[in-house]
Amino acid sequence: MSNLNKIKSILIKKTLKLDCGKEISNFPLAYETYGNLNEKKDNAILIFHALTGDQYASGINPITKKEGWWNYAVGPGKSFDTDKFFVICANVIGGCMGSYGPGTIDPLTNQPIGTNFPVITINDMVNAQYNLLDYFNIEKLFAVAGGSMGGMQVLQFVSNFPNKARVALPIACTASHSAQNIAFNELGRQAIMSDSNWKEGLYDEKSTNPDKGLAVARMAAHITYLSKQGLQEKFGRNLQERSDLKFGFDADFQIESYLRYQGSVFVDRFDANSYLYITRAMDYFDLTKQFGGNLSKAFKDSKTKFFIISFTSDWLYPTSENKDIVIALNAIGADVGFVEIKTDKGHDSFLLNVPDFLSTIKNYLNTTYSNINERRI
Amino acid sequence: MSNLNKIKSILIKKTLKLDCGKEISNFPLAYETYGNLNEKKDNAILIFHALTGDQYASGINPITKKEGWWNYAVGPGKSFDTDKFFVICANVIGGCMGSYGPGTIDPLTNQPIGTNFPVITINDMVNAQYNLLDYFNIEKLFAVAGGSMGGMQVLQFVSNFPNKARVALPIACTASHSAQNIAFNELGRQAIMSDSNWKEGLYDEKSTNPDKGLAVARMAAHITYLSKQGLQEKFGRNLQERSDLKFGFDADFQIESYLRYQGSVFVDRFDANSYLYITRAMDYFDLTKQFGGNLSKAFKDSKTKFFIISFTSDWLYPTSENKDIVIALNAIGADVGFVEIKTDKGHDSFLLNVPDFLSTIKNYLNTTYSNINERRI
Repeated sequence: MSNLNKIKSILIKKTLKLDCGKEISNFPLAYETYGNLNEKKDNAILIFHALTGDQYASGINPITKKEGWWNYAVGPGKSFDTDKFFVICANVIGGCMGSYGPGTIDPLTNQPIGTNFPVITINDMVNAQYNLLDYFNIEKLFAVAGGSMGGMQVLQFVSNFPNKARVALPIACTASHSAQNIAFNELGRQAIMSDSNWKEGLYDEKSTNPDKGLAVARMAAHITYLSKQGLQEKFGRNLQERSDLKFGFDADFQIESYLRYQGSVFVDRFDANSYLYITRAMDYFDLTKQFGGNLSKAFKDSKTKFFIISFTSDWLYPTSENKDIVIALNAIGADVGFVEIKTDKGHDSFLLNVPDFLSTIKNYLNTTYSNINERRI
Repeated sequence: MSNLNKIKSILIKKTLKLDCGKEISNFPLAYETYGNLNEKKDNAILIFHALTGDQYASGINPITKKEGWWNYAVGPGKSFDTDKFFVICANVIGGCMGSYGPGTIDPLTNQPIGTNFPVITINDMVNAQYNLLDYFNIEKLFAVAGGSMGGMQVLQFVSNFPNKARVALPIACTASHSAQNIAFNELGRQAIMSDSNWKEGLYDEKSTNPDKGLAVARMAAHITYLSKQGLQEKFGRNLQERSDLKFGFDADFQIESYLRYQGSVFVDRFDANSYLYITRAMDYFDLTKQFGGNLSKAFKDSKTKFFIISFTSDWLYPTSENKDIVIALNAIGADVGFVEIKTDKGHDSFLLNVPDFLSTIKNYLNTTYSNINERRI
């Protein structure tokens, strides 16, 4: 990828002790911002990205030249209204868009760190990103928000820093990664690690590319992002540019062609080792276990207002798992709202143009922000 | 695999015109039987196997030394009671247990046929197996039965041969393979074809083995065979022989270890090219389309009694798709029973020890067989 010099980042000098026991320091955290921080510095929103996202939530990603991953939600007049709010989004550590990750060049060897990179957790990701508050001199964020793995980071952030966000929006996520989700992530990892070009993670050094394995991993994940009904309605058994079956192994069906395409474009923008590390972090996420089996304890010191959103057709992070978070918050009398959005677009709904979802966030944020400011007056 | 000489087969001499347009003749169809054909020859049941099954439904498979795939259901006193019924089961064409398939040695080259094998369909499989009736001199089967792809064969069999079975038991199947199911099959095929050892299907000739790709395909499929709830209850986040996370990419969780095991044992008993061909046949299956969009027409000439079984937690072939078959049969006043079995074991339920399911089949077959015989008296 060219244009890597366009990436903004902060260098985190102070030592971060990781969950694995290792310590890191002097590492880069790449970020992007949208909108302006106001004088009171009370309008900042930290958005956390999902598995394959990055800091480019809105506008055109300068590296991939594609639209930002949350372009429907972040921008002037949108759900996260950048005319009003100052949105910050960072690339997670372990990622491949400028933050410290397995693709970072080790100055000692002049080669990517590869699988010598430590296994990181959602907790580590959040602790690294907390440094952005110091960097921007923000005492308290207005909101933290994110979907899928981004939602896990929201939960972990409030747990770690109970008084650093007025509002928390975990979307389509879970407090404890399920067996089925671990299974799908492990499938993806096995696809990558089974690629003879993966070379135990040293593919750059050996000038090979495990792109076929990574593409298969992406295809597997992509199926889980869509609902059975949504796939049926969108593709059904429609044929791909042919009037009849060809009796071969090319893509006869549109769904096959679509998946192959999704796999092929993904490998151009994502690093195979990052995929391993980030899925591992998701699988390790179990906030309930961090608090001895009582999720409520994760939030007991917080005054943060929660608003939780799930989607009817999301079978990866179904409503029931989102409701478990609501129940844990209700059990300690926390301020928590919840809505289940009706859609057939599956887990991907949080990234798509789902008007009810987008307007729900917009209304919630605008109203809450106004209320907070009125109370101050 | 050794002991291949233990496999029984018939040589089908007459020409079979395949859906792809090619013709085959003088090809082997491997089969096994359980129980005895009675004098009236009215107690024969033809069982069709699913994607990775074979002719060894019951007892010990002499090739793999493992229990037959339907050992819970087929045997003396079991659902398909071999003290009473004569059960026949054949390996589908395209398979790898002795029937004509991509692994069959081409006498001209002394190498496996590989991807020169024609793409076959469920219709082709059924038409090949119809020869077993002639071979055993059976005028009319008592029943045809099968789950998953076996169920598709049941539907196709009755459609092709409307008066050749008194009873039809399609289990956990569909009349038209869904987009999501095509997607998962395509994922498996891509995993195999992306393995650098697949060699365009010529792996035997080149003395390589696409076992890693095949294992990934199997892992993907295996996840779909189990329900989210079943996986959670069986594995949850239990760790594999360790007291805490290891912060690496070995199998920390039992579900990871389980999937890796499923992949590794599968490659010892199954052929990668057969996996491609059989999944393709499943994806091509659309009985509704064969009859111009009206599934009822597939059965309009038949007097076969249908009994359809689905499972509550089967998300691969959900109850709704099984009910579509019931609706099509009801629309023409066919004799059709239907039951949805409550279980959290997912699609795999039809292969497992699910007592309600096993007793339902047993009661249905025994009662129906008695009724038919009483009426004759």
